[in-house]
Amino acid sequence: MSDRLPVAVDAMGGDNAPAVVVEGAKMAAETFGVPVLLVGDPERMGDTGSLPVAPALQVVEMGAEPATAVRRLKDASVVRAAEAVRDRRASALLSAGNTGAAMAASLLRMGRIKGIARPAIAVPFPVIGSTPTVLLDCGANADCRPEWLVQFAKMGAAYSRCAFSVVRPRVGILTIGEEAGKGNSVVKAACELLEQPDWAAHSGVEYVGNLEGRDLMTGVADVIVTDGFTGNVVLKSLESGYAVFEGAVRDALAGIPETQVAGPIVERVLDGALAPVFEGFDPVRTGAALLLGTRGVTLISHGSSSAIAIANAIQTADRLVDIDIVGAVRQTAAADL
Amino acid sequence: MSDRLPVAVDAMGGDNAPAVVVEGAKMAAETFGVPVLLVGDPERMGDTGSLPVAPALQVVEMGAEPATAVRRLKDASVVRAAEAVRDRRASALLSAGNTGAAMAASLLRMGRIKGIARPAIAVPFPVIGSTPTVLLDCGANADCRPEWLVQFAKMGAAYSRCAFSVVRPRVGILTIGEEAGKGNSVVKAACELLEQPDWAAHSGVEYVGNLEGRDLMTGVADVIVTDGFTGNVVLKSLESGYAVFEGAVRDALAGIPETQVAGPIVERVLDGALAPVFEGFDPVRTGAALLLGTRGVTLISHGSSSAIAIANAIQTADRLVDIDIVGAVRQTAAADL
Repeated sequence: MSDRLPVAVDAMGGDNAPAVVVEGAKMAAETFGVPVLLVGDPERMGDTGSLPVAPALQVVEMGAEPATAVRRLKDASVVRAAEAVRDRRASALLSAGNTGAAMAASLLRMGRIKGIARPAIAVPFPVIGSTPTVLLDCGANADCRPEWLVQFAKMGAAYSRCAFSVVRPRVGILTIGEEAGKGNSVVKAACELLEQPDWAAHSGVEYVGNLEGRDLMTGVADVIVTDGFTGNVVLKSLESGYAVFEGAVRDALAGIPETQVAGPIVERVLDGALAPVFEGFDPVRTGAALLLGTRGVTLISHGSSSAIAIANAIQTADRLVDIDIVGAVRQTAAADL
Repeated sequence: MSDRLPVAVDAMGGDNAPAVVVEGAKMAAETFGVPVLLVGDPERMGDTGSLPVAPALQVVEMGAEPATAVRRLKDASVVRAAEAVRDRRASALLSAGNTGAAMAASLLRMGRIKGIARPAIAVPFPVIGSTPTVLLDCGANADCRPEWLVQFAKMGAAYSRCAFSVVRPRVGILTIGEEAGKGNSVVKAACELLEQPDWAAHSGVEYVGNLEGRDLMTGVADVIVTDGFTGNVVLKSLESGYAVFEGAVRDALAGIPETQVAGPIVERVLDGALAPVFEGFDPVRTGAALLLGTRGVTLISHGSSSAIAIANAIQTADRLVDIDIVGAVRQTAAADL
């Protein structure tokens, strides 16, 4: 453990920062054995236990304009945390603060990977009995150029290969019909680029063409690319849909008359067989979203993250460093278009 | 029943047409008592029982370019069915064939409602314990202009008021953050229009601003507007997500060891308490999508619809005629912007 670099945690970012973030960081260190560097205002952090602290006295507020804030607040916690990754004092960045600021800090301080115009948020969607399907972009770029979607395809393939051991990822594009020519103007233009055979061959990918919303959960592809607006809406729709559904199932099962058997059944079904499905869509349990395309592992948590969610995210960050996700993206992005 | 006009059914449209469509039409007439006019090739329709038939000898194929096909195939079943509505020989159009052709036939033969540039597909999303949230556009317009979203808002409000008795519908726009200024370029421009107070006041609407994917299932709005690309992807994602989920719940419940209680529990939970949730997202059970904005009720079913789905859709069409959905949209659309 001592040879591992720590995960740099933006202690000041999040609705309940720094208290909840510090608590999560301690949990990650104690429970999972992951080294952590807390970045923020030492006077506001309270008891940080044995964790090292890198001081940063400014904070990017939740409502601030991201790029401006990152440029002007040079001593902001999220900026200093990104610099720690750039300077090899930390292995990864985690922030539960202003999402745009975390992306901007990662982009401006760590830099882009060559061949990638815009970083994207990649989210693995759970597939029952199989490896996840990675959807990207889930929110970094509301408006996309067609060529960015080809870059997202390469990054997603690298992630699928590196994190889920899929040797030759099947990559498709999210649209509204199976037939060629279906989609909005950006998708149609992106399809023309994706249908060129060279990029797939060079990237070790099988391009499977048009996919629809129904293909996100059924394992017909390993990677699906979309613009950050559509991806974000779909992600939040399914997260919420599953939460509503989980509530309905719990209520229905708890309400059955066989009270002596209901309790164990509810537990066994919901916390047993269905757990992987629920957990895959529960942001509290999964921890954070991964930003791909910058030269350092960057994870972004919900502002409302609990201490457990922060701890899980820190563990995820450490694992992504361990499998060298950034190296995998760099290698795939360098393949010729 | 005799004073009601029949629902014009495109007998030749659908993966298993005309057999399955004719079977569904008979079921609607016999089981639900809804008058039906079958439109298609009498020689290919088989036994149509006591149902009247309007001959139409051409068919728009599933892969055909919609607008061209509707213009050139003047004797196509979907075109003749739309004409029957225009000419007051039928009350509504139902097609399970080429979706674009059904929209084009409705638009070109029945005409647009004044004040509506583009028709939109409206889908009620189920909300547990409340009236549905209507999402539109769910697929008619892959690329949208900002001003169309204001028209969608008015049409959705008319639908919510007329079909679900919501007196003053709360209308929001689907985007990727709560704060003003979040979204892609079309959404940002649409927000500026929607934030002008006059249209909402004139349309009897409460404009509630930015909504996210997580707000589709929780009843925080009665109507949510979006472009047809995003709406279609979200609809199919949730439909599929729920199907995957229903399968997982059934498997998990069926697999519990208390075999003597498992059967009834599965039945009671899935077919009882959870039925409204499942049914709301099962296209076979709900029947069809509603096209709003043309001067006649137009319902579009999945190509793979079963006879039961066709019968349900015919019943839905009849109900929408009964509540005068077209009159409600016409009235709301005429309100000044």
